[in-house]
Amino acid sequence: MNNQNSLNTFKFIAHRIGIDTHKHVVVYMQTNNPICRSEGFRSEAKVKVSRNSKWIIATLFVITSDILKTDEIGLSESAWEKLEVEEGQEVIVSHAEQLESFRFIRAKLFGKSFTESSFKTIMNDMVEGYYSDVQLSSFITACVDLTRKETIYLTKAMSETGRRIKWDHDHIVDKHCVGGLPGNRTSMIVVPILAAHGLTIPKTSSRAITSPSGTADTMEVIAPVDLNVDQMKKVVNKENGCIVWGGSVDLSPVDDVLVQIERALDLDSSKQLVASVLSKKLAAGSTDIIIDIPIGPTAKVRTKRAAKYLSSLFKSVGDAMDLNLDIVMTDGTQPVGRGIGPVLEARDVLAVLRGDKSAPQDLKERSLFLASKLMEFCCPHTPEEAAKTARFILESGQAFKKFEAICEAQGGMREPQLADHTFVITAKTAGMVNSIDNRLIARVAKFAGAPDSPAAGVDLHTPLGVFVEKDQPLFTIYATSKGELANALHYYDSHPEVIELGEMV
Amino acid sequence: MNNQNSLNTFKFIAHRIGIDTHKHVVVYMQTNNPICRSEGFRSEAKVKVSRNSKWIIATLFVITSDILKTDEIGLSESAWEKLEVEEGQEVIVSHAEQLESFRFIRAKLFGKSFTESSFKTIMNDMVEGYYSDVQLSSFITACVDLTRKETIYLTKAMSETGRRIKWDHDHIVDKHCVGGLPGNRTSMIVVPILAAHGLTIPKTSSRAITSPSGTADTMEVIAPVDLNVDQMKKVVNKENGCIVWGGSVDLSPVDDVLVQIERALDLDSSKQLVASVLSKKLAAGSTDIIIDIPIGPTAKVRTKRAAKYLSSLFKSVGDAMDLNLDIVMTDGTQPVGRGIGPVLEARDVLAVLRGDKSAPQDLKERSLFLASKLMEFCCPHTPEEAAKTARFILESGQAFKKFEAICEAQGGMREPQLADHTFVITAKTAGMVNSIDNRLIARVAKFAGAPDSPAAGVDLHTPLGVFVEKDQPLFTIYATSKGELANALHYYDSHPEVIELGEMV
Repeated sequence: MNNQNSLNTFKFIAHRIGIDTHKHVVVYMQTNNPICRSEGFRSEAKVKVSRNSKWIIATLFVITSDILKTDEIGLSESAWEKLEVEEGQEVIVSHAEQLESFRFIRAKLFGKSFTESSFKTIMNDMVEGYYSDVQLSSFITACVDLTRKETIYLTKAMSETGRRIKWDHDHIVDKHCVGGLPGNRTSMIVVPILAAHGLTIPKTSSRAITSPSGTADTMEVIAPVDLNVDQMKKVVNKENGCIVWGGSVDLSPVDDVLVQIERALDLDSSKQLVASVLSKKLAAGSTDIIIDIPIGPTAKVRTKRAAKYLSSLFKSVGDAMDLNLDIVMTDGTQPVGRGIGPVLEARDVLAVLRGDKSAPQDLKERSLFLASKLMEFCCPHTPEEAAKTARFILESGQAFKKFEAICEAQGGMREPQLADHTFVITAKTAGMVNSIDNRLIARVAKFAGAPDSPAAGVDLHTPLGVFVEKDQPLFTIYATSKGELANALHYYDSHPEVIELGEMV
Repeated sequence: MNNQNSLNTFKFIAHRIGIDTHKHVVVYMQTNNPICRSEGFRSEAKVKVSRNSKWIIATLFVITSDILKTDEIGLSESAWEKLEVEEGQEVIVSHAEQLESFRFIRAKLFGKSFTESSFKTIMNDMVEGYYSDVQLSSFITACVDLTRKETIYLTKAMSETGRRIKWDHDHIVDKHCVGGLPGNRTSMIVVPILAAHGLTIPKTSSRAITSPSGTADTMEVIAPVDLNVDQMKKVVNKENGCIVWGGSVDLSPVDDVLVQIERALDLDSSKQLVASVLSKKLAAGSTDIIIDIPIGPTAKVRTKRAAKYLSSLFKSVGDAMDLNLDIVMTDGTQPVGRGIGPVLEARDVLAVLRGDKSAPQDLKERSLFLASKLMEFCCPHTPEEAAKTARFILESGQAFKKFEAICEAQGGMREPQLADHTFVITAKTAGMVNSIDNRLIARVAKFAGAPDSPAAGVDLHTPLGVFVEKDQPLFTIYATSKGELANALHYYDSHPEVIELGEMV
C-alpha cells in the first residue's frame, strides 16, 4: 500500500482517551494544530500515526472542547492497541494517501471481476486495518454480486489472512450450523461421539453476537474455551476433539472485520456467508465437513428454495477447495432442546450426554443424526451402521466419558448453576402450540441477561404441536437480578406472539 | 420509519463532549450502565436519544476512561446540534430498530429496481440523519449500477429534500462546471454579463472541499456570500443575478450528506454526479442550464469518451426533468487564469471585468464563450450575435458595473489583499512548458494555506506551450506565514513534476 506521499509530518503526544470505537481505528486532535491547518484536515480525514517502525492508518475526529491539549493526540482503544504506544510517548502524524487496493472494488463496480490476487491484496489491507468502515461497507455491498469463481477466490484469500493449522491426520472432521435456532448446541454432543469413535474433530465455535448464547458461551459454563492454537492442538492430540472459542485461535481474522459491518448493514449475502464459513474451516485444516441448514419461518434460512441455493453454493466452493463437504437440511421451526441461555443450554447438553430420562429428545436425535452423517461421510459405514454406532457411543456413556476428558484437557470441568430469580409464563387459554418465534424468544432471554449473565435465559416447557390447558406453564424466565427479570417480562408483555396457541375447535 | 420497538428506555444527563464527528451523529456512554448491560449495547450500536418530542438516531461509542460519568451521555457536535439540548438536561435513551427504508437498497442489490417512491423514502430518512455512514456507503455503492430511469427518480427525490425556490420569471439561467480545473472562476464573469443583458441568473456556488478554492470562497474575498434564500431573492430581483454560497440556501441538502461519503470512497459515479448537480438546479428553480465539462489528463473528466457518456446522461435526465440543458466540452489540460487560491483568483476575475491589459485572456475567452452559449440558448440570438453581445457587455464595462451592483446588493464590495510571504519558483533548464498537473499545483496552493488563508496560493506565470529560459519564473507561491511557505516549498521540492518542461531539440 502506498500510504505516505506527503513529506509533511508533525509530532504529537500520545494519550489514551479511553473511547472504545470497536474495530474502528480512530484518533482525536484539537482543531487548531499545525497539521489540521496545513493539510486542511477535518473530521473523518484519514491520517497515518507512527512511532518508530510501527504505524496505523486512523480516522480523525476533531475535538473542540478541552479534553485534549493542542499537542496531544487521543487514541481510541483499538488505535492504542494497534500502535502499541505508551502514555505520553511522541508519535508522528502525517497525511494518509488514498488506499491503493480500493481500486479493485471500484473496478468491480464498473464491470470488472475480482481476481485471486486482487482479493489477496484487499484482504491484507483489511487485516492491517487500512479499510475504514465506509470502505468495508462498499466492499460488502459490491460482494453481493460475486460470481461463483469470485466467491472461491474470496474464500481462499480470507482463509490466508491469519493462521493455518496443520494436522498429522488425513481426515479432519467438522460440522457447522448456519444458525438462527436458539438452543441448538449439537456440537457439544457430536464432538465427543466422533472423538470417542476415533475421528479428529477440532471444533472452534463462536460466542454470541446478537443471540442469547453461542456454542463457546455454553461450553464455557462447563470448561474453559479460551485456548490458543498450541493448547488446542494439545487437547486434540490427546482426546481427538475439542470445543474451543474460535476468537482466540486467529483463523480467517478478516472475517471478524467484515462480519461487524455486515451486521450493521443487516445485509445477508449467501456468498459472504459461504466465504466466511469455509475460510475458517480451511484455516482450521478441516477436510470433511457437514453443513447444517435449518429451515423455518423465523430461522436464518426461511425457505427450501433459499436453502437449496445456499447448499449449491457451499458445494461448489467446497469442491474448488478440495473439501469433502455435505449438506443436511433440518427443521428450523422452533428452538432446539429446552434451555435458551448458556447455563440452561449446558444443562440440556449434559442431560443428553448423561442419558437422563428428562433429556430433550430433539437435541439428542439431531446430534445423533449429524454424528452419523459425518461417520457415513468419512468412515466405511453404511447409513444403518453409522446410525447404530453413533447411538451406541452416546447411550453407552462413552460420549460422556469423552466429553469429561475433553473438558479436563481444556482446563477442568465444572457444574453450571441456574439463576435465582424466576418467573413462570402460563397459557392464557387452552390450545395447541402453533408457533414459537425463534427471534422473539431469543430476545426475552437476552432481556433476562443472557449471555452476559450465563445463568439467565428462558426454559421452554412446551414444544410445537403440544396441547396445553389454560394456566399450564409455557416457559420459565431465569435472571440473576430482579431488574433484569422485570425487563424480560416487560418485553414479553408487549410481544405475546412469542408463543402462539391455536384456537379450540 | 419504525425505529422504536423495545419498551426499555433509560434516562441520562446530556453532556456536550466537544467531539466534532462531522455529519456523523455520535453519542458516548460508559460501559457499565443499565442500558448497555440489558440491551447488550456495544460500540457502533444504534441508539435513539430523545428529549420531549425531539429525537435523534445516533451511533454509540463506549467509553472506558473517566471522561464521562455513568449517568452521563456525551453528544458529538452534530448530535448536540440536532437534538437541541442544553448541558445537564435529561434525555431518554432507547434501542433503535433497524432502518426500514434500507430494505429498498437490499432489494436493489438482489436484482430489483429502485422506484420513485422508494428513493423518496430513502432520501427523507437520510436528511433526518437515520442513515449511518456504512449504510450511506452501501447506498452509494449500489447506485453505481443505476439505470437512466433510476437516475431520473433519484434526481427528483434529491431535489425534493430541501427548499425549492420559485421565481416569477419564465427563464432562470444557470451554468455549472463539472470541475477539476484550478482557477476556473468563469461564473463570476458570466453572471454579471448575463444579468446585465437582462437574464435572471441566481448562481449558487460551493466552497472548496478538497481544492484550494471554490467559487464561493473566491467571491467571498470581494463580497459576502452567506445569504439565505430571502436575501438571495432580494438581490436577484434587484440585479437579475447573484453569486452566493449554496450551503446556506438549503437546496437538495441530502446531496451534502452523500458527497461526504462519496469523497471518503473516492467513488466517482456519473449517475451520482448528474443527480447531485441537477437536483440542486431543480431545487433552485433553474430552467435553462449549460453544463461545462473540461477534458484533460488531470481534470475530473479525462477522456472525450467519458465526457460523451456523461453528456448523454446529463441530457436524458435534464429532458425528463423538463430542463433546457446543453453541454459544452472545454479544454481541461491546465489551470484557468493565473491565480490559484481565493484572493489570487479574485484578482484575475477583477482584471477581466475591469478590462485590464494584464487580464488573463483564457479566463476572459472562456467566460465569453459560456455567456454567449447561454444567450444563444435562451435568447433569439444567432451564435454570432450572441458572441458579439457578450463581448460588448464585458468590454464596455457594463458587466463590471453589474458585478459591482451585485456585490453591493450582497452586502458591499471590498478589494482583496495578497499575502506577504512569497517565493518564486524558476525554471531549472530552458524548454517548452509541456504539462501542468492540475492536481499537484492545487496541492502546492493548499500547502501554502489556501483556502483557509484566502490570500495564500499560487500564481502561475507560464501557461502550456510557452518557451521559458533557464531561471525564468514559473510560478510564485504566496503564504501568510513562513511556516506555510516552507510547507508548500517542501511539497514542491518532492514533486517537481508539477510543471514539466520539454527537452531542447
